[in-house]
Amino acid sequence: MSNTVKEFNDYRSKMNDKILADNNKVIKRIFNLDTNAFQAGALDKKTKELLGLVASTVLRCDDCIKYHLESSYNEGLSKEEVSEALSIATLVGGTIVIPHLRRAHEYWEALENLG
Amino acid sequence: MSNTVKEFNDYRSKMNDKILADNNKVIKRIFNLDTNAFQAGALDKKTKELLGLVASTVLRCDDCIKYHLESSYNEGLSKEEVSEALSIATLVGGTIVIPHLRRAHEYWEALENLG
Amino acid sequence: MSNTVKEFNDYRSKMNDKILADNNKVIKRIFNLDTNAFQAGALDKKTKELLGLVASTVLRCDDCIKYHLESSYNEGLSKEEVSEALSIATLVGGTIVIPHLRRAHEYWEALENLG
Amino acid sequence: MSNTVKEFNDYRSKMNDKILADNNKVIKRIFNLDTNAFQAGALDKKTKELLGLVASTVLRCDDCIKYHLESSYNEGLSKEEVSEALSIATLVGGTIVIPHLRRAHEYWEALENLG
Amino acid sequence: MSNTVKEFNDYRSKMNDKILADNNKVIKRIFNLDTNAFQAGALDKKTKELLGLVASTVLRCDDCIKYHLESSYNEGLSKEEVSEALSIATLVGGTIVIPHLRRAHEYWEALENLG
Amino acid sequence: MSNTVKEFNDYRSKMNDKILADNNKVIKRIFNLDTNAFQAGALDKKTKELLGLVASTVLRCDDCIKYHLESSYNEGLSKEEVSEALSIATLVGGTIVIPHLRRAHEYWEALENLG
Repeated sequence: MSNTVKEFNDYRSKMNDKILADNNKVIKRIFNLDTNAFQAGALDKKTKELLGLVASTVLRCDDCIKYHLESSYNEGLSKEEVSEALSIATLVGGTIVIPHLRRAHEYWEALENLG
Repeated sequence: MSNTVKEFNDYRSKMNDKILADNNKVIKRIFNLDTNAFQAGALDKKTKELLGLVASTVLRCDDCIKYHLESSYNEGLSKEEVSEALSIATLVGGTIVIPHLRRAHEYWEALENLG
Repeated sequence: MSNTVKEFNDYRSKMNDKILADNNKVIKRIFNLDTNAFQAGALDKKTKELLGLVASTVLRCDDCIKYHLESSYNEGLSKEEVSEALSIATLVGGTIVIPHLRRAHEYWEALENLG
Repeated sequence: MSNTVKEFNDYRSKMNDKILADNNKVIKRIFNLDTNAFQAGALDKKTKELLGLVASTVLRCDDCIKYHLESSYNEGLSKEEVSEALSIATLVGGTIVIPHLRRAHEYWEALENLG
Repeated sequence: MSNTVKEFNDYRSKMNDKILADNNKVIKRIFNLDTNAFQAGALDKKTKELLGLVASTVLRCDDCIKYHLESSYNEGLSKEEVSEALSIATLVGGTIVIPHLRRAHEYWEALENLG
Repeated sequence: MSNTVKEFNDYRSKMNDKILADNNKVIKRIFNLDTNAFQAGALDKKTKELLGLVASTVLRCDDCIKYHLESSYNEGLSKEEVSEALSIATLVGGTIVIPHLRRAHEYWEALENLG
């Protein structure tokens, strides 16, 4: 796996495990919900991943963007589809979104390089 | 048309016209982009409307939510689809989104009452 | 009950009921968590209400502020304690918090007038 | 004075007086700083008002926008200058700023109608 | 002192000194207020630190979170108390808070390792 | 050129080129607008740079702050003028702005060291 992607996922898993080991009920349930909310329902998984990506982008959360880029990639979304979603996020959220766009682009490249 | 919906749209049109009459080039182009960005492309219009709705919801902009609810309604999105999009927005954006959820629900009812 | 307080609570209950009637599982669980998170635990209820109040204030959510002001009032927190919490919120969140401070003050008065 | 402007200022003064009467030292000093920060220094008052206006606009605080629009108007800033400042705010802050632009435009008209 | 904690504090002190050396009166007073606002008053220091921590967390400011984690640690707050405060921040602020939760957990460990 | 400044600019250019190569029309137009909006008009370039700086600061976007610091520096704005603009941003945006102030101060030093 590309270093950037692997490092992100390793740190994420390691710290999630530690947080969940604290046994705080509210936190555990929020983590749980996070898994459930993106399952297929009235909307399919691809659409939901794009919704998660756009929400993360306008709120300017790089780690959340990476997470949803990876799921989007794994769901088979194309670069064009992801770019259109990000363009809506940039229009709605303004030019302060652009630095996150740069890092998103770089992370998508890292995902593609994993082949 | 239901009063709530008509009042919102009338005020919106009236003030947009006044803003555009100022002839500020940057503002005019942003307004233009806002129309273009939601046209069908790699993603269809329904998906784009949901993306606009979720972006507006996590950024907690009631007027933007109303605008995208109306376009979503007109594009034929069902209440279940819209609810799932809003549930992702609430999970990502937190419980501070809930008051906007109440007003979104009320506005969707107003749209349904227009028949 | 003072009109302002009653109106706020009535609208809140009515719309919450409608939202929950939609039976969206993610939304229902978030509503549930919202009740659980403020129960006494390692921290007592008063402290938790103040935390909810400060979070709502720096995020500038008037309805959330009202909700936590009422719970704070019902838990027996004094005006001085609430003011100190709000002063921290204003310092951390900046002068854009001040308009919400005005409305918070007004709502606290309405709560006091309920006797 | 136009009703909108007068109502805003009256409510603002009344609630500020009540907040200051609480004698919270942190709040009082923040209110004080708010007056000092916009005095002429290395930058003149006009420029500072525009900075306050843009900060308020990208943070989407309608009451703060009104306050700085009135000071900008009183300092003799033209509609064109204010529009350019607001266009930068809209570009940087995104289309979620547009609803605040509408209300800003309306308030500026109310200020002009005061003669 | 653990490297992470020492590095954070050293950079913070060095840059604060430089900023204060600029002699900008508004900035100096805000820095001053920041010290005063967290002194014991109607609320004790522990509660105020938790309020500062929750405000910093929902506003997603990693450096502010670190600062309040350290003060909370020094005031003798337990990991359980801090976790409950952070769980409220995550519920109110949404899942975009989670990446900050990971870094907060890591920093708390660094503080504990200073023993 | 100082390393910090050069690295920032190189990464920024490289990624902007890649983003523009995607040929997403909305993104391309937003990038274009970003250049146009800061040209002299009713307001001069110096004032507009300060507006961009303050908007970036209250929205807490480090990369945007760096970009506008460099343009401000190149337009000949003095450290005192920039400090006053940043002090307004800190007052309006609150103490969560302070960590960005530290990094802004450091970047300004890097710009001065380019001589």
